[in-house]
Amino acid sequence: MEYGHGGDVYTKGVCKNIKLIDFSSNINPLGVPNSFREHLPEALDNAVRYPDIKYWELKNNIVKYLNKDFNVKSDYLVLGNGASEIIDLTLSCFKSVLIPIPSFSEYKDNALKWNCRVEYSFLKDDMEFDYEDILSKLENVEAMIIGNPNNPAGNIIHKEKFKNILDYCEKNGKTIIIDEAFVEFTGISLVSFLKELTQYKCLFVIRAITKFFSLPGIRFGFGVSRDAELIDKIKGKQNPWNINCFAETAVKYILIDEEYIKASLIWIKNQRKFLGDKLREISFISKVYETQSNFILCKLQGINCDKLYDLCLERGIVIRRAGNFDGLDSSFIRLAIKDKESNTSLINCLSNIKVNVKRGEKSEKYANIF
Amino acid sequence: MEYGHGGDVYTKGVCKNIKLIDFSSNINPLGVPNSFREHLPEALDNAVRYPDIKYWELKNNIVKYLNKDFNVKSDYLVLGNGASEIIDLTLSCFKSVLIPIPSFSEYKDNALKWNCRVEYSFLKDDMEFDYEDILSKLENVEAMIIGNPNNPAGNIIHKEKFKNILDYCEKNGKTIIIDEAFVEFTGISLVSFLKELTQYKCLFVIRAITKFFSLPGIRFGFGVSRDAELIDKIKGKQNPWNINCFAETAVKYILIDEEYIKASLIWIKNQRKFLGDKLREISFISKVYETQSNFILCKLQGINCDKLYDLCLERGIVIRRAGNFDGLDSSFIRLAIKDKESNTSLINCLSNIKVNVKRGEKSEKYANIF
Repeated sequence: MEYGHGGDVYTKGVCKNIKLIDFSSNINPLGVPNSFREHLPEALDNAVRYPDIKYWELKNNIVKYLNKDFNVKSDYLVLGNGASEIIDLTLSCFKSVLIPIPSFSEYKDNALKWNCRVEYSFLKDDMEFDYEDILSKLENVEAMIIGNPNNPAGNIIHKEKFKNILDYCEKNGKTIIIDEAFVEFTGISLVSFLKELTQYKCLFVIRAITKFFSLPGIRFGFGVSRDAELIDKIKGKQNPWNINCFAETAVKYILIDEEYIKASLIWIKNQRKFLGDKLREISFISKVYETQSNFILCKLQGINCDKLYDLCLERGIVIRRAGNFDGLDSSFIRLAIKDKESNTSLINCLSNIKVNVKRGEKSEKYANIF
Repeated sequence: MEYGHGGDVYTKGVCKNIKLIDFSSNINPLGVPNSFREHLPEALDNAVRYPDIKYWELKNNIVKYLNKDFNVKSDYLVLGNGASEIIDLTLSCFKSVLIPIPSFSEYKDNALKWNCRVEYSFLKDDMEFDYEDILSKLENVEAMIIGNPNNPAGNIIHKEKFKNILDYCEKNGKTIIIDEAFVEFTGISLVSFLKELTQYKCLFVIRAITKFFSLPGIRFGFGVSRDAELIDKIKGKQNPWNINCFAETAVKYILIDEEYIKASLIWIKNQRKFLGDKLREISFISKVYETQSNFILCKLQGINCDKLYDLCLERGIVIRRAGNFDGLDSSFIRLAIKDKESNTSLINCLSNIKVNVKRGEKSEKYANIF
């Protein structure tokens, strides 16, 4: 848990007033949208009242946003104090779940907390989902949870290959939970399985404003599904007024902030290419995985993630060691895609770290440093 | 649920842009403390980061505040997305609970949600706790939850009479959950059972910033106990980052806002007396209960709460019908103590409602309404 979630700048930097650039936390570097900033007084005015216990307006604002591309109804929504709450409560409704790994560690942690039995499907070497393996393992579980894009590699679900899985689950009463916390970064709305919601009642899609709208501190995410029974079951486990008034106001304005959305999509498209290309030039990075998200998984050679973490930290850069992802080892790191200046600093930092790399080396044994 | 929590201004007023004065919601009328308002930019700066998963600074700020009068440690704290979360998760840890009623309906709702068996102890006619009855019923339960001050009457626990109960619970491994969401309004710190925490491990005290600091929209409350096992059990059920950054910043400044605290204590002392005295002059109110909180329970005669609610609503005033509190009937209403101007409007409104009251009448039968 200590370095399990990224964003651990509290013990390392903030507390000691050292300025670090944090590549462990996958947040849009454009920062808090101005459209929210400008309407803070409205949020403050609402602070003196309990929120509407049914959150009608909030739900309507989400529906309007989603229905630019999809066709959802207010009834399909369940709102969470962060997507974490939705992931947690959704998993609490099942006795067994299939998790393709590596993936976000909360899936497993939450499942085990609720005594939900976990089965795994390992991603292939290129970090693509193993669709055949997934299909073969669904018989023994009630549900599956999968990231789209997935964390830590940023790969997305191949819809054509996934169709058999959807059909099987729809027919056999299994639930597919798709965590789309990062989906906006793909820039392609049809990547989302909200598109398939009208056909498949077995789908439960989780979304958040955390990553794309740069608001992890505000705590807001939601689930979308046509499975009214499941939605009601989750709601029954929630506390009243679980969404704070600042989240309500943020949602009201950021989801219609076309300027922010457009600027973010331009940034991510450019910087994803820039950083990916530059990382491929680093000698001790043997593989840069294809990503559709705002982070990049890299495989190291000649150095392990702990050593590299320390060396980067000395240079004011925090990277995400990915060795604690189930299915990965200490030869992996994950890097957030940040603004151009920060990305350039990262590349400069990595370029200045000398690792003795033997050509074709695959071993985990440490090479000499310097 | 529809009129169960007070503050239901959404369907009645806000949505229709009619200005209502809401006496159903028990919030400090001094509004959001300026000390928070002035530091909103700080909260916003934190919105782009995940909160510290351990909330060290937040906990330290709470400890400093409480330790003006008590002696608590950071380890004793469990933080909630509103006191609601703490009440709910605490009750989820027990198989049976005793609830003195009438009291906040969430106690029962939450207990039943977790299949926690509920036993009741009825308050006496003067709305005081029946300490002997409570003691006699503790044998059959694992825990008790009780408000101090209690909602809806605003009565506080008589510490001398409660001692036997504490001793019994301490000796027999029962937990006493004391909901002190309104305790600051008493103006007397020793009313709080945080004072007894060093002696009694069986105590679990719940506090909030909702009511006294006028911030229900921000969602923050917490539990305090020396029972490390119980604290850990509750934490184990929580999601990471359950507290938003606005709540963190609010706590940092409002708890040391002596000006706000002082002004609030002067207001509540004066207006509690003013409103209580004036209500006692209303012909169709047969009893005004003694309160140490910021709301007043009244018993009606010659009119029931639904009829009075409608008559007040026509005059722009929302009252809390108390007929749905277990143990009360439709002859009860609860009124928030607000600023002098609002309280005067309430009294004027009530004075203008003519109810044909027969002297000594106790029946629920409607009198003629004019």
